[in-house]
Amino acid sequence: MSNYNRKPKNSGVKRGKSSYYFTDNESFKIIPLGGMKEIGKNCTVIECRNEILIIDCGFCFPDDEMFGIDVVIPDFSYLRENAEKIKGLIVTHGHEDHIGGIPYLLKEFNIPIYAAPLSMGLIGGKLGEHGLTAETHIIEAGQIFNVGNFKIEAIQINHSIADAMAFSVKCAGGHIVHTGDFKIDYYPLDGKVIDLNRFSQLGSEGVDVLISDSTNVLREGYTPSERIVADSINKIFDSTNQRIIIATFASNIHRIKYFMEAAVNHGRRIAISGRSMENVVALANDLGYLKGIPESAFVDIKSINNIPDSNLTIITTGSQGEPMSALTRMANDSHRAVKLKKDDVVVFSSSPIPGNEKTVTNVVNKLYEKHVDVVLSDTMDVHVSGHACREELRLIHTLIRPRVFIPAHGEYRHLIEHARLAKSLGMSKKNIFVISNGDLIEYRNGKAQVTTEFTSGEDVMVDGYGVGDIGSAVLKDRKQLSQSGLIIIAVAIDEATGSLIAEPELTTRGFIYVKDNMDLIDEATAVVYNTIGEWLERGKKDFPALRNALKDDMRSYIYKRTKRNPMILPTILRV
Amino acid sequence: MSNYNRKPKNSGVKRGKSSYYFTDNESFKIIPLGGMKEIGKNCTVIECRNEILIIDCGFCFPDDEMFGIDVVIPDFSYLRENAEKIKGLIVTHGHEDHIGGIPYLLKEFNIPIYAAPLSMGLIGGKLGEHGLTAETHIIEAGQIFNVGNFKIEAIQINHSIADAMAFSVKCAGGHIVHTGDFKIDYYPLDGKVIDLNRFSQLGSEGVDVLISDSTNVLREGYTPSERIVADSINKIFDSTNQRIIIATFASNIHRIKYFMEAAVNHGRRIAISGRSMENVVALANDLGYLKGIPESAFVDIKSINNIPDSNLTIITTGSQGEPMSALTRMANDSHRAVKLKKDDVVVFSSSPIPGNEKTVTNVVNKLYEKHVDVVLSDTMDVHVSGHACREELRLIHTLIRPRVFIPAHGEYRHLIEHARLAKSLGMSKKNIFVISNGDLIEYRNGKAQVTTEFTSGEDVMVDGYGVGDIGSAVLKDRKQLSQSGLIIIAVAIDEATGSLIAEPELTTRGFIYVKDNMDLIDEATAVVYNTIGEWLERGKKDFPALRNALKDDMRSYIYKRTKRNPMILPTILRV
Repeated sequence: MSNYNRKPKNSGVKRGKSSYYFTDNESFKIIPLGGMKEIGKNCTVIECRNEILIIDCGFCFPDDEMFGIDVVIPDFSYLRENAEKIKGLIVTHGHEDHIGGIPYLLKEFNIPIYAAPLSMGLIGGKLGEHGLTAETHIIEAGQIFNVGNFKIEAIQINHSIADAMAFSVKCAGGHIVHTGDFKIDYYPLDGKVIDLNRFSQLGSEGVDVLISDSTNVLREGYTPSERIVADSINKIFDSTNQRIIIATFASNIHRIKYFMEAAVNHGRRIAISGRSMENVVALANDLGYLKGIPESAFVDIKSINNIPDSNLTIITTGSQGEPMSALTRMANDSHRAVKLKKDDVVVFSSSPIPGNEKTVTNVVNKLYEKHVDVVLSDTMDVHVSGHACREELRLIHTLIRPRVFIPAHGEYRHLIEHARLAKSLGMSKKNIFVISNGDLIEYRNGKAQVTTEFTSGEDVMVDGYGVGDIGSAVLKDRKQLSQSGLIIIAVAIDEATGSLIAEPELTTRGFIYVKDNMDLIDEATAVVYNTIGEWLERGKKDFPALRNALKDDMRSYIYKRTKRNPMILPTILRV
Repeated sequence: MSNYNRKPKNSGVKRGKSSYYFTDNESFKIIPLGGMKEIGKNCTVIECRNEILIIDCGFCFPDDEMFGIDVVIPDFSYLRENAEKIKGLIVTHGHEDHIGGIPYLLKEFNIPIYAAPLSMGLIGGKLGEHGLTAETHIIEAGQIFNVGNFKIEAIQINHSIADAMAFSVKCAGGHIVHTGDFKIDYYPLDGKVIDLNRFSQLGSEGVDVLISDSTNVLREGYTPSERIVADSINKIFDSTNQRIIIATFASNIHRIKYFMEAAVNHGRRIAISGRSMENVVALANDLGYLKGIPESAFVDIKSINNIPDSNLTIITTGSQGEPMSALTRMANDSHRAVKLKKDDVVVFSSSPIPGNEKTVTNVVNKLYEKHVDVVLSDTMDVHVSGHACREELRLIHTLIRPRVFIPAHGEYRHLIEHARLAKSLGMSKKNIFVISNGDLIEYRNGKAQVTTEFTSGEDVMVDGYGVGDIGSAVLKDRKQLSQSGLIIIAVAIDEATGSLIAEPELTTRGFIYVKDNMDLIDEATAVVYNTIGEWLERGKKDFPALRNALKDDMRSYIYKRTKRNPMILPTILRV
């Protein structure tokens, strides 16, 4: 690394002279609202001279302890406090973890969106579902445009979705490059190779801060090209006359188009299954991304029984074993149109997203029970990642040579390993910032520092219509209820005398099968009478004390008898 | 495979002549109560001439949908119907999925247990916890013994726990070999190499049915020897002066002993952390399995602060990221004795059991946040599997040459792939049985058939003291409660007039944070008054109808308002 020149050439000279963007002693701030120390809900705020630019706004799925939560979105409180500064949102690509939070953002802030055609199509679908509209600007790789006084350039990269891009963002405070999610593919299926020359030129101009994808930093070498997936799929098509069912990510349009081409070349018709697959294919078709696939190649999923097995390919959702997805319904015999047959070939063109291993395995086992021929990515190259491995990251760092580096888009261990990689390439430790959601980085004159004057980055949980109205107390209750259920003790008491005026009612849910355990319910009812009797003996009409006594006595009786801890909910009606 | 002779040599001649065990036209039955189409709760019943032998009795952990369930054990109903026939239980090894169900078995059936010293020690601990005693017989590899009229031979194998064995079981109906869980290790740490010669001899004698481990059938080649773990650990000890903390499976005594030897050789003291690690180490010590480790090498975990970092090794539980385990507590700063420091070396001598990926990852990320140096098995050989890969399975099949093969101990896809492997070695498809828990296989005169006259194999769920008292209705309730919580509507009504005699009480749990949503509670209370008013107008005092109306009206109000579906629980006290 001795010949590695970390300092951008000429950057000191150009600064504030060749471009009106850079001004001496000006600063900018970067506040990641998501995408740090977790995979998902990417959202980065850049602020300069009282203008805010937002890059991406994703959601993520709840972790195991977030019972009943639909999705988790970034915390917008910083944006709320600075709403008038926001000039717009630019979007790197259309994956959920980059666009899923946009409807929640747009509900609060009426701001323009800048995105490539497929990304914008996917965003439009989301806005429609939420009954929202927005000012939209279609952009494409290579384009240079302004959002407020931010001068932005979209740069071609490769990823597992069409129309993915990196951004160069220039402002008075300096120059930021955000890679988005990327990999390097020297012969991608759509022919649009990552624009390494442009990254190199930007590096020569001088980049103050690089923000970059860390997902695959634990993997040495290179992520293979999408083309090896194409080769494997051709081998499968060449080798079987059975029905071929391929499950993959709906958003990987280039791959799906290739599957369609392979089908056509092998004299097979194409049926699409699964709502998101249908939607994205229709969108891609509208955008002209499926050019070359004749309309006649498609067959409605409801009409597949008219097609011989050797002439049919089904492209479906469900590659993650999602319970309601089309492939899972096929495996469960509950798909309306597709009844799996012995020797059908089912290809998982995917690998399980961390946390989904077991659901995928369950579907695979069900497919084996149907004597289906299952092809997985661990035995054949039917899937490649969309993220750069270590050697690719080294290349990007070497081309861009930033002054300051912020590893993004990864769990904490990914961020740390990406920081170590940057350090191994010659960066000084003091210019590498492993930060958390909500940290604020201020950059001025070649130096950055983290200030904690503002902190956010909390999970904002969405449950139904409610955004942020579920807190840890509610989740704790849901957890207890899920573990042991509940017992309701309802009593009506004469307020004057303190005596019972109706029979106590015990109700249980999720606790035990009551009909088989009537003796337990009888004993528990006796406990209630006993508690009330003792309370009466104490003389004072202290209803809160009765409530506590009912709860405590029942809890200890139930635990002694069953070793379980259901939630005990006494309800006292005073008459 | 053309020179592969699938028929056992001489077996036709010997049968019923050289041994009193085999009788012409006699039969035996095999009924797996667990271990088929799932990983865990292994339990195999062999029945011949009104005698039953049980091999292993494990439990497994609940899947994600089994809310609140502690463990899942085999269904003993077949044993209940045939209790007088049971002669004893023989145990292949002491892992939970082979011994965890024994206390539940012993509670119902007072039968003798035959197990090797470590297995028996672990079983003894379990029986003690449940307040049980049993007739026990210590056996060891190479020993031949009778259980009823079953002639049993314990055969040395290798696995990830000391004292693991396979069994040859001879009875009047024929000869069964059950491999247990095994791998082939040509130079295991304890020097006890799998007895391939004996397997070869048994194959020559003639084996009617082989039941064998399928766990690693998806992996080509061989599982490496435990010795490569030892080599890696030595490298770690050679290369650091920091504290070394190793998390591994408590039952892998040979590996733990090796870690201790490495510590002693590098001038380090040894502290043990985690209840199961303490228990197993104490047991192994009592059994003499830690011979050579001087008593003075150990240090109490509470006294480690007196020892310099470079002289300390901690061996701990928590390699699966279990929430209450010692390593997780260290990562959470809640371990009483161990406070992690920057540059501590934490070694995961393990790989995540399927389903545990995320919990392990969470702990790893927390360790990174503490700037600990984390060593995982995917970057260094600090763990090897305990199960045979495909080439080892081919060897065992080739030595044993069974007439009938039953793949066991795997998910359905493992059983199918193991069946395919047997077929590729020359076995006829009709002699390979991929069966489910509770299937009954009858073997007579060289032929086997599956009868479904008896089926069991259902999951029996244990929750606290309750065994099998939780059914799908209770689990469904727990799931709903976990997703959306509940609303209780308690009303006291005058039985004669039907009118309310106290204010209705609404209670919610796990639904919403009530204090921030008082308007919703007020509106919901108005819904209750309205429902009762309409009910009164209908004139009849139909209390079940009131109950339903309270539920339906509240459900639709809440859904419309929040898009959530909490459980609605009306309680009507009639006064």
